[in-house]
Amino acid sequence: MKRPETISIITDFGQADGYVAVMKAVMLNILAGLTFVDISHEIEPQDVVGAAYVLSGAARYFPPGTVHLGVVDPGVGTARRAIAVATESAFFVGPDNGLFGPALAALGAIDREGLILYGGRAVQIANPMYALQPVSDTFHGRDIFAPAAAHIASGVDLSDLGPPIDQLTVVKDIVPEADAGTVRGAIVYIDRFGNAVSNIPGRLIPPRPEITVGNTVVRCVSRNYQENETVAIVGSAGLLEIATKNGSAAVTLGIRRGDEVLIRGRL
Amino acid sequence: MKRPETISIITDFGQADGYVAVMKAVMLNILAGLTFVDISHEIEPQDVVGAAYVLSGAARYFPPGTVHLGVVDPGVGTARRAIAVATESAFFVGPDNGLFGPALAALGAIDREGLILYGGRAVQIANPMYALQPVSDTFHGRDIFAPAAAHIASGVDLSDLGPPIDQLTVVKDIVPEADAGTVRGAIVYIDRFGNAVSNIPGRLIPPRPEITVGNTVVRCVSRNYQENETVAIVGSAGLLEIATKNGSAAVTLGIRRGDEVLIRGRL
Amino acid sequence: MKRPETISIITDFGQADGYVAVMKAVMLNILAGLTFVDISHEIEPQDVVGAAYVLSGAARYFPPGTVHLGVVDPGVGTARRAIAVATESAFFVGPDNGLFGPALAALGAIDREGLILYGGRAVQIANPMYALQPVSDTFHGRDIFAPAAAHIASGVDLSDLGPPIDQLTVVKDIVPEADAGTVRGAIVYIDRFGNAVSNIPGRLIPPRPEITVGNTVVRCVSRNYQENETVAIVGSAGLLEIATKNGSAAVTLGIRRGDEVLIRGRL
Repeated sequence: MKRPETISIITDFGQADGYVAVMKAVMLNILAGLTFVDISHEIEPQDVVGAAYVLSGAARYFPPGTVHLGVVDPGVGTARRAIAVATESAFFVGPDNGLFGPALAALGAIDREGLILYGGRAVQIANPMYALQPVSDTFHGRDIFAPAAAHIASGVDLSDLGPPIDQLTVVKDIVPEADAGTVRGAIVYIDRFGNAVSNIPGRLIPPRPEITVGNTVVRCVSRNYQENETVAIVGSAGLLEIATKNGSAAVTLGIRRGDEVLIRGRL
Repeated sequence: MKRPETISIITDFGQADGYVAVMKAVMLNILAGLTFVDISHEIEPQDVVGAAYVLSGAARYFPPGTVHLGVVDPGVGTARRAIAVATESAFFVGPDNGLFGPALAALGAIDREGLILYGGRAVQIANPMYALQPVSDTFHGRDIFAPAAAHIASGVDLSDLGPPIDQLTVVKDIVPEADAGTVRGAIVYIDRFGNAVSNIPGRLIPPRPEITVGNTVVRCVSRNYQENETVAIVGSAGLLEIATKNGSAAVTLGIRRGDEVLIRGRL
Repeated sequence: MKRPETISIITDFGQADGYVAVMKAVMLNILAGLTFVDISHEIEPQDVVGAAYVLSGAARYFPPGTVHLGVVDPGVGTARRAIAVATESAFFVGPDNGLFGPALAALGAIDREGLILYGGRAVQIANPMYALQPVSDTFHGRDIFAPAAAHIASGVDLSDLGPPIDQLTVVKDIVPEADAGTVRGAIVYIDRFGNAVSNIPGRLIPPRPEITVGNTVVRCVSRNYQENETVAIVGSAGLLEIATKNGSAAVTLGIRRGDEVLIRGRL
């Protein structure tokens, strides 16, 4: 069987300083001919939640066997674990800080508490043979995560990287709560157009919703961005967004990252 | 014969939100091993004319058989057509909104009215078999254009994608007018250095020109950017530019996108 | 033996205008299937020293045989030479303006005066057969450097590109001075986090240092960025950096590019 060979990369490194290139170079040393797809390097520094949602929106479209390398890692050099996770369709490599939560939940590989579900597997990366030595305190992307990703792409089994783990760190409140008639979520990302993206999947929205974010109330879900001045829309990643026609909802409506989104069903 | 396998991509998506990566992922699912070349994702949102000129300046350098995927698409979700165009050397896939006009005109594949000329072929993309289902209203780059581009790269014939069309939408005034002694064009792009790029190819400039843009008049064409304070120069894309030595012509001379450029021949 | 096939690229072109894509297109025309790794295109316009340090920090991680294409070229169209350099592990192609100095010095391929050392080889690129004709005055990246890089990747020997040269242009003061008890260097780069990167390799720092930059004095070298409010740290590229905890050293301490860094050993 042909081995997986596409590696997606998401970081908060920016594109000016060469750090992403260093990770690619390290991986090409391990496995020539890899195909890299940059998801984003413009994540706000240390914005694990924003990165988690951008990754989750993109990961589902990748070929089976893709290795997703995520390095948004405020805890580099501390005790946070380095992890590699396998689902039935993909691999994820990076810090155990919640970065992979939404993507893994969407794939059904973890539950709300971060417990690995049937069909998933996770290990703590601990085997020094698969790291770039000497391992620095400041750049685990280069020294631990990139080597692990390339070795997985080249066919190394997760069990060779380190001991199994059965629960991942999850970011509290990152998954919306739904109970009888009410969905409670949050704005998790503002995109470049100023659309305010929530963590609420379209399927959780009731037929006749009342959607409240701050002072904004919307009572229908639109099919496109032009339908009203202020629209609620299920965006291309499958998540509820608040947008304004030809403008920035973030600016016009004063919506910010972390704002609560409340949906009630109407009669 | 080896199939074409390079895909160039130009969008106004920016690089922060993961949308370009989603298109690449969709294409890799259809044809592994594609080589992607990003022309630009920093086109101003919805700036079809700017994108058209950046693409036209780059397209001529690509290997024969390259598929150029262009998604600057203010009309997504409306009645504008999705198109695929073949010339003798390349393919173009995207919305029928004028985005490919300058590149196709430079290749001799369309006339000023957008009529397909001998050697060119165009179809409306309409075959649901070659789209990512369900097709959204908001992201045809992912659902229609990227799949079509990858299928063309994998050898699918244009005629399988949909019915032939014989005329493309052109952006009015995007091509300069030349008659006895006078050339009338426009500034179509301001680059990152503040150089003001016109739509006038170097070959249309008469031997002893008087070039007027707003209050600026230049009477010779320079060979490099250092020759005078204000220079008219045929830039690397073959188009007349107005530049200032060590500065931004856009700022210094107050030149803006859309300004008329008038060239008269002198005796 | 398999030919080298990875090409790294560093420029000050930005990513909006399509110039990098043009260079890649030209290279793909010469050798299909190349792997490109973008080191940075966000170098400040004409900042040869900043680019030199970003390249030097990244180059060591690339696979043997990588061709490093560098185009930060304020002297394009003037008499500055176009060069190709081979070391025992890599190739460098670009203008002879000091851009490759730190990387070549780190590899032991040149001395402080730019003289080529044993194990290195350099030529002036002069053979018109390996250029894109006609060669412009404004874009040697496309017309001279990209073609040379791709031809080297395809196996062309340096001696076919032009006559040998034995000394490269070096940027004055780019290499720190070390004598008994004192190291004198400079800040050569401010990264996106505001860390001030010097040109002083960690191995030159004495055991009990006193590090002075402007009004800032630091008396120990930290292992991570969180250890003190103001830290001196040997960063991921092996160079002494001045950083502030959770902030920008450049802003907080008023450190700027070019500032002198003085290290004295204490008893």
